[in-house]
Amino acid sequence: MLSLDKFYRASYVLKNVLRRTDLVYAPEINPGTDIYLKPECLQVTGSFKVRGAYYKISQLSEEEKAKGVIACSAGNHAQGVALAAAKNNIKSLICLPDSAPISKVEATRKRGAEICLVNGVYDDAYQKAIELRDEMGYTFIHPFDDENVISGQGTIGLEIANQLPDADAVIVPVGGGGLIAGVSFAIKQLNPNIKVYGVQAAGAPSMFNSINDGEIQCLPSVSTIADGIAVKEPGSITFDACQKYVDEIVTVTDDEISAAILALIEKQKMIAEGAGAVSVAAAMFDKVPVKGKKVVCIVSGGNIDVTILSRVIKRGLLMTGRTCSLTLELIDKPGQLQGVANIIAELGGNVISIHHERANEGSDVNGCYLRLLLETKNFDHIDQIKQAMLNKGFKIVNI
Amino acid sequence: MLSLDKFYRASYVLKNVLRRTDLVYAPEINPGTDIYLKPECLQVTGSFKVRGAYYKISQLSEEEKAKGVIACSAGNHAQGVALAAAKNNIKSLICLPDSAPISKVEATRKRGAEICLVNGVYDDAYQKAIELRDEMGYTFIHPFDDENVISGQGTIGLEIANQLPDADAVIVPVGGGGLIAGVSFAIKQLNPNIKVYGVQAAGAPSMFNSINDGEIQCLPSVSTIADGIAVKEPGSITFDACQKYVDEIVTVTDDEISAAILALIEKQKMIAEGAGAVSVAAAMFDKVPVKGKKVVCIVSGGNIDVTILSRVIKRGLLMTGRTCSLTLELIDKPGQLQGVANIIAELGGNVISIHHERANEGSDVNGCYLRLLLETKNFDHIDQIKQAMLNKGFKIVNI
Repeated sequence: MLSLDKFYRASYVLKNVLRRTDLVYAPEINPGTDIYLKPECLQVTGSFKVRGAYYKISQLSEEEKAKGVIACSAGNHAQGVALAAAKNNIKSLICLPDSAPISKVEATRKRGAEICLVNGVYDDAYQKAIELRDEMGYTFIHPFDDENVISGQGTIGLEIANQLPDADAVIVPVGGGGLIAGVSFAIKQLNPNIKVYGVQAAGAPSMFNSINDGEIQCLPSVSTIADGIAVKEPGSITFDACQKYVDEIVTVTDDEISAAILALIEKQKMIAEGAGAVSVAAAMFDKVPVKGKKVVCIVSGGNIDVTILSRVIKRGLLMTGRTCSLTLELIDKPGQLQGVANIIAELGGNVISIHHERANEGSDVNGCYLRLLLETKNFDHIDQIKQAMLNKGFKIVNI
Repeated sequence: MLSLDKFYRASYVLKNVLRRTDLVYAPEINPGTDIYLKPECLQVTGSFKVRGAYYKISQLSEEEKAKGVIACSAGNHAQGVALAAAKNNIKSLICLPDSAPISKVEATRKRGAEICLVNGVYDDAYQKAIELRDEMGYTFIHPFDDENVISGQGTIGLEIANQLPDADAVIVPVGGGGLIAGVSFAIKQLNPNIKVYGVQAAGAPSMFNSINDGEIQCLPSVSTIADGIAVKEPGSITFDACQKYVDEIVTVTDDEISAAILALIEKQKMIAEGAGAVSVAAAMFDKVPVKGKKVVCIVSGGNIDVTILSRVIKRGLLMTGRTCSLTLELIDKPGQLQGVANIIAELGGNVISIHHERANEGSDVNGCYLRLLLETKNFDHIDQIKQAMLNKGFKIVNI
């Protein structure tokens, strides 16, 4: 049974572990809406997950602590468990699929965990963790479906109620459901008038489907840049809590998530991971009724792989007219490249790359293709450059 | 005359304007060193500049306020002045060179300033601002060489002394010198044992040169990714303060700044602009004696252009082995591309782009070049892929 009593106890236990995360006022996210961010991306370990893991571990018996804990995760939960175990002076073992990014493995190891790399995918690592638990007597720390874990995550709900008592709504990322179970329970106990919305990635809508169907559904596969909430099946405790305390669950696409990540970078100087940005995406794209309201978006974590971040930014630049990819069909004679270069230089475009290719099947026998990647200012600027090229007789090919 | 009295007064005036910026413990920046970040990138307007601008404007006479203020800046100072003027219900006019990035112009306009785009470069915009001041009676808000502006920036020194009274050193970005003048004065008044170090970009070492020469030097030109501190000539008040209160000024390269930006993203989930990251670069690369010490790095701002950010990340990925650019010389016969693709796929590399070119002058008449850009895990992974290609008889060309 969830109880506020436990949540307050967790708050007390977590006092010396957590970084304080003040709400950040960010009305630029959706003009006309008073949006506040709860920046758990700035939390120690870069995610809220340390709250649940730490509280769970702190409540173990001395005997359990002596044996140590085990978990299965390639991400934020692993780092939370590792840190919590280290601070409690107990042993932690984290099972990971050997396909996990090296950076995440190293981050977990650095926080003091022992690592067990398992051949295969997540499910194989999970099986191995359960085997080791049974064999060695470790306590398994579930990433979400555990009352103490949920109580730890729920401390965010207490903080929000305290930091913005007159909020109209709280928007919460949903994977397995641990965070939203805790937050919705806390919020509704303190003030049932505050709406609680959950957000999932469109490519991993397990809780969304389960709530809509009225029973737990298991997805055959998941696919999203929000890997932190790419969960096939919600927990049973978390599913029950969502049924009781959550007003609505919605989904957002990877493009919407990318736009939210970019907006957080540009406007708030904050790095969110995909899972952390779904709440902001929902508010940006009016997936839930926020206009004119006071809304808290929980930005649950910031552990995004830099390679992914780089792609998100590239996509964002293209989508906002700040880079432009252009292909010209040129007549194959001297001076053509110079002509193009002149136009770009005069209009203040910046060449990132050029590929000059001859003899393409589709082109004139005398023709060749020039593929340009340019840094531009905005869509108007792109139009200016294109128009100048057309005016000089260059042929733009749309590929 | 600078006086602590004024600094405390500025602190009081700024209370309802500023976002609170708690120190963030970040020992990962340089293992063995207790580094704390003062994250002014998370400040309103994304930079500390609002402190000085707001305090300056708050101290104007009613007559001056009625006429309004003018400033010349394409960056953080402009946004600070615009916000401060708007909150004081007075008019602000910002002169900018028409080459300024549209995003910065728009950000300043959104904060309520009128914009005057001036044909030319910064110096032209500055001339125009002075002309308009004389013509219209506006008060010119200097970006750094002004005691009230310095008093506003100095509130950061008061906060640091309060937040970490036993700090050994504070590291401060230096452009014109307003921030370090205020911070060093405050720190040395309160505790002269705390060292204060300044950091400039190697491509814009105006205060560095001036302090070394014992008199103000003007650089003919500046070039760095840290545009916020690319200042040709320090102020006279700020130069005097640096002579009196700063222990040492050092420089960092653009590559070091890029590495610092990337470290802040990956480890702290924070976006710093180049100017904001020079303090962290100095600590990371041991430019000042920090080992074993308690050190505060002021991360002065986060307003980095996304295009620049994208380049910094790309460079960081290359430098850490997470992307790899590779050129192969192939024999021009069917099946070659397939062979290469097999190796990459088997070893878990991810193709970003491929260019297949025939008939290069340097190559065999039957040969062709295959240029690959791959996502890789680290330098070991790159070596594995290269070795596998060599083993299968492919020729790697170093270009």
